[in-house]
Amino acid sequence: MKLEKKVAHFTSPLYLESGRILEPYQISYETYGELNEDASNVILICHALSGSAHAAGLHEEDRKAGWWDGLIGDKKAVDTEKFFVISTNVIGSCFGSTGPMDCNYPNSEPFRLKFPVLTIKDMIKAQKQLLSQLGVHHLKAIIGGSMGGMQALQFAVDYPNFSDKIIALATTYATQPWAIAFNKVAMEAIRRDPRFKNGNYERDDFKESGIDGLAIGRIAGHISYLSPDSMNEKFGRNYVNNDGLFELFGRYEVERYMEYNTNNFSKTFDPLSYLYIVKAINTFNLSRGYDSLYEAVLRIKAETTLISFRGDYLFFPKEMKHLDKMMRRTSQNVSYHEIDSDYGHDAFLVEIDKFDTIIRKKLESL
Amino acid sequence: MKLEKKVAHFTSPLYLESGRILEPYQISYETYGELNEDASNVILICHALSGSAHAAGLHEEDRKAGWWDGLIGDKKAVDTEKFFVISTNVIGSCFGSTGPMDCNYPNSEPFRLKFPVLTIKDMIKAQKQLLSQLGVHHLKAIIGGSMGGMQALQFAVDYPNFSDKIIALATTYATQPWAIAFNKVAMEAIRRDPRFKNGNYERDDFKESGIDGLAIGRIAGHISYLSPDSMNEKFGRNYVNNDGLFELFGRYEVERYMEYNTNNFSKTFDPLSYLYIVKAINTFNLSRGYDSLYEAVLRIKAETTLISFRGDYLFFPKEMKHLDKMMRRTSQNVSYHEIDSDYGHDAFLVEIDKFDTIIRKKLESL
Repeated sequence: MKLEKKVAHFTSPLYLESGRILEPYQISYETYGELNEDASNVILICHALSGSAHAAGLHEEDRKAGWWDGLIGDKKAVDTEKFFVISTNVIGSCFGSTGPMDCNYPNSEPFRLKFPVLTIKDMIKAQKQLLSQLGVHHLKAIIGGSMGGMQALQFAVDYPNFSDKIIALATTYATQPWAIAFNKVAMEAIRRDPRFKNGNYERDDFKESGIDGLAIGRIAGHISYLSPDSMNEKFGRNYVNNDGLFELFGRYEVERYMEYNTNNFSKTFDPLSYLYIVKAINTFNLSRGYDSLYEAVLRIKAETTLISFRGDYLFFPKEMKHLDKMMRRTSQNVSYHEIDSDYGHDAFLVEIDKFDTIIRKKLESL
Repeated sequence: MKLEKKVAHFTSPLYLESGRILEPYQISYETYGELNEDASNVILICHALSGSAHAAGLHEEDRKAGWWDGLIGDKKAVDTEKFFVISTNVIGSCFGSTGPMDCNYPNSEPFRLKFPVLTIKDMIKAQKQLLSQLGVHHLKAIIGGSMGGMQALQFAVDYPNFSDKIIALATTYATQPWAIAFNKVAMEAIRRDPRFKNGNYERDDFKESGIDGLAIGRIAGHISYLSPDSMNEKFGRNYVNNDGLFELFGRYEVERYMEYNTNNFSKTFDPLSYLYIVKAINTFNLSRGYDSLYEAVLRIKAETTLISFRGDYLFFPKEMKHLDKMMRRTSQNVSYHEIDSDYGHDAFLVEIDKFDTIIRKKLESL
C-alpha cells in the first residue's frame, strides 16, 4: 500500500459558520493507495475527537499503525488496491491542521482562546477545500465513526451530490444532552485547572507531566467509550494490588486502566484543541441551517449506511434508528445495521471484524 | 410529627473491617415519631453518598425538608404516627458524625488522610452501636436507597435476626466497575486539585468558593444520577443564552444544571469525606467475609424488598434482579419491583410517588 503524509496550505479565507474567518490555514492529511487518472476512486475517512490523519499503515516515523488500520489497506474492507483513500486531520485539532495553538496571523502569537469556534460544518468545508486542491471533485464514499460519522452525515446533507455513498458509525443526527454532559466534565476540568492559565500556557508545559484537567476529562470520556458489560468483562472487581481494599487510594483494575490511558493522553493532546473539538461535537445538529431535521435529511442523495453498536452508551442505537426511519419514510437509499456488541462506543475502533464485511459489501458495488 | 436532632457519643472502640479502630466517635442522628414502650416500633433509614441524618421534616434551623420527606411523616408510607424512625449520618460523612476532618484523639489535629478507610460494614456496625445505646435491640425495618440500600442489605446479611424487613432501592449486591469508574473521576479530580493540598486544607478553605475537584467529580456523578432520557426531557438541546452556539464557553441548559448543583455542593461537602464515602461504595461487596455471594445472601432472614428503576444508569435493574433470583432459588422471602421510570438513579429520591405504595404495603403488615 502506498502511504503518503502531507500538509496542504490554504491562503484563501475559510468562511466559518459563526461568521468568522480562518485565514490562512493548513490541513494535515494522509493518503493510502493511488489516485486513478480521472480522480474517480477516492474515499474520504473522517476521524473522531482524539483522532488524527493517521488512519492506516505504518510510516517509518510512526510508532503505531493507524487507528483504522484493520479496516483500511490492500485487500481490506476499504481496499487500497482499488481506492485512493484520503484521511485528514480536522481543523481545530493538534495533529498538523490549524488549531488554537497556531499563530493568529499576522501576529506571531497563538490564537489560544481567540481561535474561532468551529463546527462540524466548518470541518467538512475545510476538507472540501483540500479535495478541490487535490483535483478531487467527487467521492466514492465518506466513512467515519463518532465525530467522523457526524462529518459523513453533514457532508451528505450540505453537499448532496458530492459522494456516492456515506457510511456513518456509532454516531447521531444531533448530539444529545447525555453526551454534552460527559463533555462538560472535560470542559470544566480543563478550564478550572490552574495550569491551563485561561489558555495562556506554553506549548511544552504539559510534555513532562500532562495537564490534570484533560486527564480527568478523559477519564469521564473513557466511561462513555466503554459500557457496563465491557467493564465487567475487562476488569471485574479486581484490585491492582492486594492492599487495594483498605488503602484509600488503592486501585481497582478499572481505575488503573483509566489512569494509564488518560495520563498519557494529557501529555500529548492539546487542551485547547480538546475544548474546541468537544464544542464542535456538542453543537452538532444536522438540522441547523435547514427548516427542520426532516428538511435537512431529505437533501441526502448518497446511499447511506448507518451502523450502531448495541452497547454504545454514548450515541445510543436509537439515535441512528431515528434517522433510518426518517429516511425510509421518504424512500431514500438507507440501510441500518445494529451490531451485536457489548464493548461500548469504542467498538467502532476495536471490533472491526464485526462490521467490516458490511463496509466491504457496500464498497464492492462501486 | 415529633422530630428530634441529636448527637450520640461513644467512648468504646469501634473495631473496623480494616483491623483499625475508631475511638472515640460520634453519630449525628434524627428521630421522627415516638418510641413505644418496649422499643418495638423502630424503623432505620439509611442515606446515600451525599445525604445526612436529615431525612424528613423541617426543624426550625433547617432550610429544606429532609431528603425523603415525601416518604416519611404522619400518615405517609413510613408512618410516623405508628413507627419511631431513626435516621443517622454515616461515620466518615461531614454532617455531624465522626469523619476525616475531626480530631484524631488524643491529638487536636484532624485525621485528614490518616482517617481509617471505612466500609459499608463499618457504617452499619456504628449504627448498631447507636441503636444499642438507645435501647433498641430489634428493628421493624431498614430502608435505604443507593448507598443506603447497600447498608440495608449488609445489615440483613451481617445481623440476620436484627430486622423483620429490609427495603433496598436503586442499589446493588456489589459495586460494579461502571460505578467505580464514575467515582474515579471524583477521586482524581479531588486528589489533583492543588487546593486539596493532599488533604492538608483548612476547614473553611472552600466556604466562599468551593473546591473545583469536588465540583468536577460531582458533574460526573450527576451524569450517573440522571439518564439519557431524563436529560432529553429536562433540557433537550436548549442553550442558556442565544450566543451559546458560537461562544466556546456558551452553555447548554444541561451544562448550567450541572454547574449550579455542583458549585454549591463543593462549598458545603467536605472533599475528604467524599473520598472516604466513595471508597466505601467502591468496596461494597456483600460476599466479602463470607465464602461466596450465595453464602452471604443465604444468611438473610428479613423479608427483603428490592426496588429498581428501569432508567437507573448507575445501579442497573439487572443487579437487583440477580439478587432476587438468587433468593428465590433458596426460597427466601423476597420481592422484586422494577419501577417504570426514565428519571435515572435519582428516581429513588425524586419519584417517591412511584414506589411509596409498595413501601406502605410492606410496612402495613407490621
